[in-house]
Amino acid sequence: MQFFTAPVEHLIEQFQKLPGIGRKTAQRLAFFVLSLSEEDANTFATAVVDAKKSVKFCSVCQNLTDSEVCSICADKTRDASVICVVADPKDVVAIEKTREYDGLYHVLHGCISPINNIGPDDIRVKELLTRVAEGDVREIIMATNPDTEGEATAMYLARLLAPFEVAVTRLAYGIPVGGHLEFADEVTLTRALEGRREM
Amino acid sequence: MQFFTAPVEHLIEQFQKLPGIGRKTAQRLAFFVLSLSEEDANTFATAVVDAKKSVKFCSVCQNLTDSEVCSICADKTRDASVICVVADPKDVVAIEKTREYDGLYHVLHGCISPINNIGPDDIRVKELLTRVAEGDVREIIMATNPDTEGEATAMYLARLLAPFEVAVTRLAYGIPVGGHLEFADEVTLTRALEGRREM
Repeated sequence: MQFFTAPVEHLIEQFQKLPGIGRKTAQRLAFFVLSLSEEDANTFATAVVDAKKSVKFCSVCQNLTDSEVCSICADKTRDASVICVVADPKDVVAIEKTREYDGLYHVLHGCISPINNIGPDDIRVKELLTRVAEGDVREIIMATNPDTEGEATAMYLARLLAPFEVAVTRLAYGIPVGGHLEFADEVTLTRALEGRREM
Repeated sequence: MQFFTAPVEHLIEQFQKLPGIGRKTAQRLAFFVLSLSEEDANTFATAVVDAKKSVKFCSVCQNLTDSEVCSICADKTRDASVICVVADPKDVVAIEKTREYDGLYHVLHGCISPINNIGPDDIRVKELLTRVAEGDVREIIMATNPDTEGEATAMYLARLLAPFEVAVTRLAYGIPVGGHLEFADEVTLTRALEGRREM
């Protein structure tokens, strides 16, 4: 059943395809677009096409970039002997925000997940091994998420990397800063106890 | 501070301009666009530009349309002697969904709201008067929202229309179907009592 005029219906349908956007929100967004100036609507549309067209994967770390090598890999002041392995480009941003890490990254673009039919060949594992095999890498920090799939991926990679002369580390588990002990789950608390350090 | 590569940041910024979309959601939407095929991304962008370019206002009822006269006004089987006045194109869709109304509409595109500096000249009042003045209209149903601004607009229009030989009616107030008396507010309940009908 079509209620709005065809171009509006079409726009609503397009918005509805976005994740987490239902019919009502799609309507709201479509009407917002109609309220924009023609110039602003064009800017919006161009951003969509441009991003899709110009964004590719860094040939070194597989992060998103619009050039051959991303700005982090191209930065000669960074420590190229440490690679932090993350599942997603968003995780790179999260770690960069700490301003405490000056090594390089490797973006897997997913985690191994047999239940979703994602095996090692579906994520960027091969590229990581190539980087490590080329030498000069001292440490690999596994920074996949502390959930089942992230853990499994980290374990799998650690085993793959065992033959190389490289230290494989994992992010520390523990209670989040600003958190409350009483609200921490048992597993986190157990890990926090195990990982306790001298003050 | 820019974390993602420029085209991605630009796309995130564009999504962030949409109503109710914050930075995190904009990121999620942008990454979804990147995951689309180039063809789907183009379809999305084209829908935005097309909707903005081709959608205009029906010359009769001011509803959104991509032709000179909208499909409802052009439908000769509908009763042209009844006009239902609504604030927004979405309200037309809401009433059409009932499948109980076969008159025409008039879309005001807003309500009178002194607090937001919206006067009668900022909404499509003049066009309504022209329609009524041209004759053949028997009844005007005020279907603006039952809030302060919708009420004020309905009252204002009713007064404007008084000199014409036309019945001006208002949607019934009452408890919503499926609602519970105990949760109805006093004003609604008062209106429901006032509007009681013989069974």
